[in-house]
Amino acid sequence: MTQPAGRVAGAGLPHTVGILGGMGPAAGADFARLFVEACTARMQARGIAVRDQAYPEHWLAQVPVPDRTAALDDPRPGAHQPGDALLQATGRLAALGARAVAIACNTAHAWHGLLQERFPQLAVLHMPREVAALLRAQGRLRVGLLATQGTYRSGLYRQALEHAGIECLEPDEAGRERLMQGIYEGVKAGDMALARRCFREVAQALRDAGGAEVIVMGCTEIPLALDEAGAGTALLDPARALADALAREAYPEPIDGSRP
Amino acid sequence: MTQPAGRVAGAGLPHTVGILGGMGPAAGADFARLFVEACTARMQARGIAVRDQAYPEHWLAQVPVPDRTAALDDPRPGAHQPGDALLQATGRLAALGARAVAIACNTAHAWHGLLQERFPQLAVLHMPREVAALLRAQGRLRVGLLATQGTYRSGLYRQALEHAGIECLEPDEAGRERLMQGIYEGVKAGDMALARRCFREVAQALRDAGGAEVIVMGCTEIPLALDEAGAGTALLDPARALADALAREAYPEPIDGSRP
Repeated sequence: MTQPAGRVAGAGLPHTVGILGGMGPAAGADFARLFVEACTARMQARGIAVRDQAYPEHWLAQVPVPDRTAALDDPRPGAHQPGDALLQATGRLAALGARAVAIACNTAHAWHGLLQERFPQLAVLHMPREVAALLRAQGRLRVGLLATQGTYRSGLYRQALEHAGIECLEPDEAGRERLMQGIYEGVKAGDMALARRCFREVAQALRDAGGAEVIVMGCTEIPLALDEAGAGTALLDPARALADALAREAYPEPIDGSRP
Repeated sequence: MTQPAGRVAGAGLPHTVGILGGMGPAAGADFARLFVEACTARMQARGIAVRDQAYPEHWLAQVPVPDRTAALDDPRPGAHQPGDALLQATGRLAALGARAVAIACNTAHAWHGLLQERFPQLAVLHMPREVAALLRAQGRLRVGLLATQGTYRSGLYRQALEHAGIECLEPDEAGRERLMQGIYEGVKAGDMALARRCFREVAQALRDAGGAEVIVMGCTEIPLALDEAGAGTALLDPARALADALAREAYPEPIDGSRP
């Protein structure tokens, strides 16, 4: 496709990027908002005039994907596995011209390796690794993790955090069940008050009993119903870290190599 | 594409739909949020269990589109015209399987006829007509319009409202300039405080001098920086009306013809 005239003066054209969403759809839409905010911040830091045409072309795919946690519970092949839906949507994002793709679901990162291997021409970003890099830069040593059962079992965050020298505190089985209730009977079913109660309770326990310095909201549904006042502690939204990383991919570094 | 198992029990499969965004990108992302909310409400009204896989597949195209108001000011052909960018993105949404498309920009509806004519297989929704139908159903007789210069000049809302028997109050030239400042130097440039001041001032004038019963926020940037407390009057967000209409297209009526 030809670029419209006057795209971005003097800073190279932004790259087209894709967002793999639908897991759930509210979180996917929210991720698009975070990405637009991250682009605005990046343009302001770079001294690029912020206007509609200066944003990178980006496509949000909100596709039905079988439940990720259920698939990790039952690893047999079948229609309940999300791999095919994730591959199809990623392929369509690549066909639309995306150079980088962000997956707007923590648990779906269990299929990150499959997607990256099948689409080597794309940069498939990795949310837990982006979070670990950010926490390391902040000097954090001990963080609490709120997530789905699937994410806990996959060890996605534990591995990324430990690799960065950060201790990862996880709730006990009752706390995990309470989180699943908040995610499925709360956010995904439209009952935000229930979600809020569940998330607060588990976040406060990780702070009080575990001594977590910061709580990582390791499921995209959780930030939709939890804030720092409710949690009583500092929160990190991995979707925001991922949105920043996608904006970094969208705006190539200037030719002189200086970083904003 | 095959459908994942257990998509929506007993209510037909939702149709794939598309959102034409990027005008501006913040408004496009916000429209995706409104659409997801409208789908949730529609499922709840229909008694469909709300879960990720019950949402319609939808694609948000956030593409760079030349400025719509500038193009209406200078109707000569050229790279400053948005028609080609709008046609390309609509064609790609159609290729992704969309049956209906919503345009997340009021002013861009000046090109609605072009898109609908070129893609007769799609239902290209018309935001001002959806708004007029909603206001008529509410029994409104006299409404104020906040919009871009391009939308005022195109007469998009005035025609749709008058056709529905509703009087359309518009600000004077100074008020219109103030709105353009709020949209371009405010929202599109990331200065929300400026945007808020501009929008409030013009909304309050339409209420006080014109006697508007409700204010139509006829530019997708305006709801991002104006609420009813600030305006001092009832507000109608056309994006919400359009999102409801797109959700209606996504969920086919049940076979027995009953409406939710």
